Amino acid sequence: MTDIAMIEAAAARLEGRARRTPLLSSPFLDEIAGRRVLVKAEALQHTGSFKFRGGWSAVSALDPATRDRGVFAYSSGNHAQGVAYAARLHGVPAVILMPADAPRLKIANTRALGAEVVTYDRARDDRDALGARLARDRGLTLIKPFDDPQVIAGQGTVGLEIAEQAAAAGVSKADVLVCCGGGGLTSGIALALEGRAPGLRARPVEPEGYDDVARSLASGRIERNARISGSLCDAIITPAPGEMTFPIMQRLCGPGVVVPERDCLRAMALAFTRLKLVLEPGGAIALAAALLHPETVQGEAVIAVASGGNVDAGLFARLLGDFGEAG
Amino acid sequence: MTDIAMIEAAAARLEGRARRTPLLSSPFLDEIAGRRVLVKAEALQHTGSFKFRGGWSAVSALDPATRDRGVFAYSSGNHAQGVAYAARLHGVPAVILMPADAPRLKIANTRALGAEVVTYDRARDDRDALGARLARDRGLTLIKPFDDPQVIAGQGTVGLEIAEQAAAAGVSKADVLVCCGGGGLTSGIALALEGRAPGLRARPVEPEGYDDVARSLASGRIERNARISGSLCDAIITPAPGEMTFPIMQRLCGPGVVVPERDCLRAMALAFTRLKLVLEPGGAIALAAALLHPETVQGEAVIAVASGGNVDAGLFARLLGDFGEAG
Repeated sequence: MTDIAMIEAAAARLEGRARRTPLLSSPFLDEIAGRRVLVKAEALQHTGSFKFRGGWSAVSALDPATRDRGVFAYSSGNHAQGVAYAARLHGVPAVILMPADAPRLKIANTRALGAEVVTYDRARDDRDALGARLARDRGLTLIKPFDDPQVIAGQGTVGLEIAEQAAAAGVSKADVLVCCGGGGLTSGIALALEGRAPGLRARPVEPEGYDDVARSLASGRIERNARISGSLCDAIITPAPGEMTFPIMQRLCGPGVVVPERDCLRAMALAFTRLKLVLEPGGAIALAAALLHPETVQGEAVIAVASGGNVDAGLFARLLGDFGEAG
Repeated sequence: MTDIAMIEAAAARLEGRARRTPLLSSPFLDEIAGRRVLVKAEALQHTGSFKFRGGWSAVSALDPATRDRGVFAYSSGNHAQGVAYAARLHGVPAVILMPADAPRLKIANTRALGAEVVTYDRARDDRDALGARLARDRGLTLIKPFDDPQVIAGQGTVGLEIAEQAAAAGVSKADVLVCCGGGGLTSGIALALEGRAPGLRARPVEPEGYDDVARSLASGRIERNARISGSLCDAIITPAPGEMTFPIMQRLCGPGVVVPERDCLRAMALAFTRLKLVLEPGGAIALAAALLHPETVQGEAVIAVASGGNVDAGLFARLLGDFGEAG
């Protein structure tokens, strides 16, 4: 199981590889929220999301002989790019299994990051069987998106940086709102904060209708989403919290926060105007909670993790039209 | 005159106040340029541009009795916001003289940053006479936008950071392309690089039709622009290089680079897609040169300063429509 020592070890492996992303702020956002708002700008990470950290952590933790045979992942999104780029920088093969109807640009980007993309038909093909064959025939190692101790450790390095950066900003007590899918980022940050900034508390943020983690934390057992498609926040929609991530979140996190999807669009417009930062809907949901639902947190400051920025240009142009300069 | 010791002193005063902005990169941008591209993301600075550095440097360098009476500046743009916010953080009054027809949002932002905004009629009023009266009647000190040794020193702190960050990235020899108006940022960076990274060389970048600095460097004397309105790159259009900045640029800079304005829009789209960074046209022109005019530089790497991101949402939405995902 992931612990603070594993997160510190992941940070050492990521040194000079992952970007130390800034903790941004704006007096205009403070005014909207009614308290200080600090934004961990992880959209500026390599490949546009925190997923590069977990990908690098997991690939770099493999023993060299295993790693040299290569890795594979299932993903049409941010995890694909994070694993692909981590593998490329290690000089080892990566195969990404993507649905054939994934956006062409995402397939092209993943290929351009050096991965072999194997497409499958969502309706006809058995993705897991395809993966098992890759593992058996080519000796590739699966890098899971969140339920993997080294992936959690890699995402936890975000929490180490937050602990240091919040202290430098004079903030020792605050909620840390985290965009939450399967819980890899949230649980990793929670572990890091437990060890390095015990006055900071991680809290998962999810969109309405896809609040499996909030419900699981409330009920004390793993709850599932009724559906996993149709959300604007596609990057953070998973069927249920992970077997590894949930117990960590249960032990360490405050209650989940659930916000309407549309608020993500307004938060994206505010990040554009006030932070000069591009966010995707799922990567903006923690900021949406901090700015537009300030009643869900207490205290003089709040920290929001802005976890990714891989957004379609058309969607972004439309939301700027809807919300404009002032967010 | 500004020297490396003044820049180091400005950096000490800016410590914990200005943001240390990241040096971003993307393999996709490297591929477009045909070499490594490192982007100094100064749009992430407080108030959305590097101008906060010069504003803070100048305000903090005043003797306390003078500073307490307050400061003033002429500007409808980034300098206004940088000075206003620096004064507010010092707890001293700031008056910004803005044309009455400046965009309402910019006036509102400058007020929201704590400044008293005095508007004047561009056609009817004498701006300099208004400023002289503020200085005489209220004892306010003028903070000039570029031709001030402490402003140049503040902007030079960008160069100190580039020197360190480029070394950490393994780049010791490269051109540093700088978005250039009056030359405060360019000359400050040039001085910092002379002292701390002599293998890096600053080069000003300007839009076609407003290439006063490039022409001045070529002719060896201060040349003026034929006009100073009508450019997309409004933030970096000035009548001529400064009396203080020009001799520094003449001594230290490589030849100026001149690019078509439209290339700024494509560079903005690429920064959106590949760096998750919001840039304004004038703040994107160095990146435009690095990516779209790679023949103007030599060597294995190039550094582009992305100096500001205060862009109108409508313009940004339109360029995303024109250039889309792939820039």
